[in-house]
Amino acid sequence: MELIVYLAGEIHSNWRQEIKEKAQALQLPVKFVGPMENHERSDHIGEEILGTQPNAIFKDEAASKINNLRTTVLMQKADLVIALFGEKYKQWNTAMDASTAVALNKPLILIRPEALHHPLKELSNKANVTVETVNQALKVLSYIFEEENK
Amino acid sequence: MELIVYLAGEIHSNWRQEIKEKAQALQLPVKFVGPMENHERSDHIGEEILGTQPNAIFKDEAASKINNLRTTVLMQKADLVIALFGEKYKQWNTAMDASTAVALNKPLILIRPEALHHPLKELSNKANVTVETVNQALKVLSYIFEEENK
Amino acid sequence: MELIVYLAGEIHSNWRQEIKEKAQALQLPVKFVGPMENHERSDHIGEEILGTQPNAIFKDEAASKINNLRTTVLMQKADLVIALFGEKYKQWNTAMDASTAVALNKPLILIRPEALHHPLKELSNKANVTVETVNQALKVLSYIFEEENK
Amino acid sequence: MELIVYLAGEIHSNWRQEIKEKAQALQLPVKFVGPMENHERSDHIGEEILGTQPNAIFKDEAASKINNLRTTVLMQKADLVIALFGEKYKQWNTAMDASTAVALNKPLILIRPEALHHPLKELSNKANVTVETVNQALKVLSYIFEEENK
Amino acid sequence: MELIVYLAGEIHSNWRQEIKEKAQALQLPVKFVGPMENHERSDHIGEEILGTQPNAIFKDEAASKINNLRTTVLMQKADLVIALFGEKYKQWNTAMDASTAVALNKPLILIRPEALHHPLKELSNKANVTVETVNQALKVLSYIFEEENK
Amino acid sequence: MELIVYLAGEIHSNWRQEIKEKAQALQLPVKFVGPMENHERSDHIGEEILGTQPNAIFKDEAASKINNLRTTVLMQKADLVIALFGEKYKQWNTAMDASTAVALNKPLILIRPEALHHPLKELSNKANVTVETVNQALKVLSYIFEEENK
Amino acid sequence: MELIVYLAGEIHSNWRQEIKEKAQALQLPVKFVGPMENHERSDHIGEEILGTQPNAIFKDEAASKINNLRTTVLMQKADLVIALFGEKYKQWNTAMDASTAVALNKPLILIRPEALHHPLKELSNKANVTVETVNQALKVLSYIFEEENK
Amino acid sequence: MELIVYLAGEIHSNWRQEIKEKAQALQLPVKFVGPMENHERSDHIGEEILGTQPNAIFKDEAASKINNLRTTVLMQKADLVIALFGEKYKQWNTAMDASTAVALNKPLILIRPEALHHPLKELSNKANVTVETVNQALKVLSYIFEEENK
Repeated sequence: MELIVYLAGEIHSNWRQEIKEKAQALQLPVKFVGPMENHERSDHIGEEILGTQPNAIFKDEAASKINNLRTTVLMQKADLVIALFGEKYKQWNTAMDASTAVALNKPLILIRPEALHHPLKELSNKANVTVETVNQALKVLSYIFEEENK
Repeated sequence: MELIVYLAGEIHSNWRQEIKEKAQALQLPVKFVGPMENHERSDHIGEEILGTQPNAIFKDEAASKINNLRTTVLMQKADLVIALFGEKYKQWNTAMDASTAVALNKPLILIRPEALHHPLKELSNKANVTVETVNQALKVLSYIFEEENK
Repeated sequence: MELIVYLAGEIHSNWRQEIKEKAQALQLPVKFVGPMENHERSDHIGEEILGTQPNAIFKDEAASKINNLRTTVLMQKADLVIALFGEKYKQWNTAMDASTAVALNKPLILIRPEALHHPLKELSNKANVTVETVNQALKVLSYIFEEENK
Repeated sequence: MELIVYLAGEIHSNWRQEIKEKAQALQLPVKFVGPMENHERSDHIGEEILGTQPNAIFKDEAASKINNLRTTVLMQKADLVIALFGEKYKQWNTAMDASTAVALNKPLILIRPEALHHPLKELSNKANVTVETVNQALKVLSYIFEEENK
Repeated sequence: MELIVYLAGEIHSNWRQEIKEKAQALQLPVKFVGPMENHERSDHIGEEILGTQPNAIFKDEAASKINNLRTTVLMQKADLVIALFGEKYKQWNTAMDASTAVALNKPLILIRPEALHHPLKELSNKANVTVETVNQALKVLSYIFEEENK
Repeated sequence: MELIVYLAGEIHSNWRQEIKEKAQALQLPVKFVGPMENHERSDHIGEEILGTQPNAIFKDEAASKINNLRTTVLMQKADLVIALFGEKYKQWNTAMDASTAVALNKPLILIRPEALHHPLKELSNKANVTVETVNQALKVLSYIFEEENK
Repeated sequence: MELIVYLAGEIHSNWRQEIKEKAQALQLPVKFVGPMENHERSDHIGEEILGTQPNAIFKDEAASKINNLRTTVLMQKADLVIALFGEKYKQWNTAMDASTAVALNKPLILIRPEALHHPLKELSNKANVTVETVNQALKVLSYIFEEENK
Repeated sequence: MELIVYLAGEIHSNWRQEIKEKAQALQLPVKFVGPMENHERSDHIGEEILGTQPNAIFKDEAASKINNLRTTVLMQKADLVIALFGEKYKQWNTAMDASTAVALNKPLILIRPEALHHPLKELSNKANVTVETVNQALKVLSYIFEEENK
């Protein structure tokens, strides 16, 4: 029984690579999906496919349509969502994806630095588990598959 | 992870063939489904299976029952819907299938010639992405599968 | 027990006024809702609220956002939808609203001239009842409230 | 037919008061609900009801449980959500409430300063309408109730 | 808090009248709804509204469309369904309405003569409670409203 | 893409065998499921597993629990339901399974002899397609898989 | 805007009376519903309506059918559930009602003595808020209605 | 067609091992999932991953978050739930998992000693089938797969 896990959150560090490698090392039967991680490509995909837009706002709108389509298709396939907040940026997409997971009854693991506990307190409470490191999230993921009597 | 894509819309051009071939060339893990594309067969299927009907309206009703059964079964399996409007005909089935997709929370890519932007403005706004060519739709579809770190 | 009825469809004739007056004459406990009927206002509402847009397509998109918001709020409140197709225009919004009703499990009465039976056959089959006149639709609506033993 | 409107977003300005007064002046049949607006009370409600907690994180968790209960009860009653982003703060609760509304198929009006268009582009695309001022949001709300033939 | 109760089942005896009078005598806050009880009218409503049909089957189809519309609208409003099977007739509509209630998670009270226990065993098992008399059904209904401490 | 088809209805003739063989001959990618077809076993399964019951009614109740469990598990897996009514018996289980399919939005093909058109008119109207022979049902099923351009 | 609150849990103390009186004193717009509080009546209701049963197990089954019908109807109307565990008894009905509330996305306040924290830890984690006294639950309920600017 | 079966209930006896071995002996196409069966590990998993907690209640809360995540992911994959109550302990998790299954429309087999019939009567009535031994549950499970004409 394979699980599909959506990895929401920042695309400026290589945390997805870390989690994929560790899951593979543990031979967890997991398929990871997520948003476009190439930040440049994510910002320009609207104009690339739909052509030049009148201004920056319309360029953003064009890109967001295609990013949201991708995200929606993949999250609907997911059995579980892991969302990571970093120290920097607004990260409203992370909050959006994490909240969407909760509203769709998809279990959520939230990774955030302790320093962000106050502004994230309501979202953290909605998550199933909140941890501080990728490694802790992996341990939670791994725990789902542990069996006494195989 | 294979996606099932329902191709709604006109059955007078070979756009489905085009999209299937291009997806195959890109090795996208996609299974395409859709309505009966043989227009003659689609119109006569009711009388073929249920026998001669009293008049043209009842013949239409008989055919539509079987066409709708097919469409419903296949769209319920779909992860994504692509709907194409051409320049001609009423195309109310296309509007019906596209709207059904949206109401069932299935992501929708709308293909329509720019000339139709005004009468399709509300449906276009409900779609996730609206494009003008089959090629653009394929680029959006392909974007779902792009990965930085495989 | 009052029912809320959404009146989808053309905004070029006064059929909503007719149905409202007849329902009132029969003292049916019905509250009617529907789209903006002033066609001019419907087309310009985007620019009126959001400001001038770069071109006709963006103007349409701005208007459609606000029209769709209205339609969505009101249709979600409806217990029943009546959708009328006229002889003219593309009427894709009517097809969209009628199909949305069906997908949301809201009972649908379709009004269409007999001449349109062929292009509307699949949508007609999805409707609960298809009639040709506003008066027939009213009789169906009235039938819901008939009681032998009050 | 009264609508219930949930007002999500910042609790540092008096925008809710402004929207309530204007809606009342227009005699819109609307009941507004929303989160606890007293920021102090919102932060301390956990310890007030559940007693002193071991540290700041647990204090936050206690408060968030009660704030989320309130928000969940009230948003489930809402027909429409209006979410306002200001210039300051992380505002992840606003993103959370707005995304929850979208996932629950509740129509969403997003108010945000133009300067925030880039980080909010995906959430803005998921909203039904994005505006920049409270007054614009009110115009959208008012448009829902406009009728040609009362 | 008023409950809406749909009374499904045979329209050849006056059991609905009996249950309404007894509920009124007990001042239960209940609004009863149900199918058209005039059997003649129910059979002819299709041709009355839609005009003469080609044959008996099409006449039946026309009538059933309008009867199903009524039933669907009213059952969707119901908080509880009571379905009565009598000794005679096929009564497939009663089985249909009772099963629909169960599938829609609407609590179901089944009334059937003991003699029918074998052919109705699976449906009886799906009902919340199965009784043999209208009076027993009324006692179950009344039990919902009993309070120790008003 | 394999479809799962639930075959509801009478267990006194060998119609399921017929449909399975024909589907296999046509190489349709279909997996058929359905109720226990051994009538004796179906009636006694309750006492076999749960032990002797106090009387015939309780014996029926015990059997129906286990039959309903089987039916519920298998129908929830189905993409499509085919329900067959024969000339004899009450067949309320068939009506129950067919209605459950409709309420769960599972497409339904109804097979019934023409002689039963009147008592089955409302259920027939709720079905997607009503036919008179197993062979017609198979043609409808086969139509779902027809493709012009493989 | 009135809320309906279901009070699940023990029927051996008068905690419901306490919460109703305090809510009334605070003029909270709340309607309370719940299970049959008369323990004797709850145990005998099956035989009272359905007649003498073969043994104690069947007597229990008869009673539980009617109690579950009541509970299901009333909980489906509820906006919020408060569930109280006492020191004694198995209280599996309380666990059942509380878990049902969570699975139906109905917000849950759990009241339990601190001594029960270990066996109730998973249910407590699923609740929105866990408190130890009726008074604390009332404060949480009251918090939902607090407004800064009425 | 493989079914996924969630085994809820006590983790102090080896009943899961028994059911797995018997199902394997019968070659039933079933994949079993369930909670962490190592009681020690289940109690300490919170502190193991999240670090030392302030006191026993917070330790329980930390553990329950991770246990609930596991349970939720796995039960959402399940086609059927089997829940076993033993003679000892509060077993509120068993009641919670069984009730959750019912509320999610997942068929439920309840195993309980006859002695517990009174406190479990309402939950037993909500289950599809209640049995007293693991062996009986296995017979019910096996019955789902029996076929006359393979």
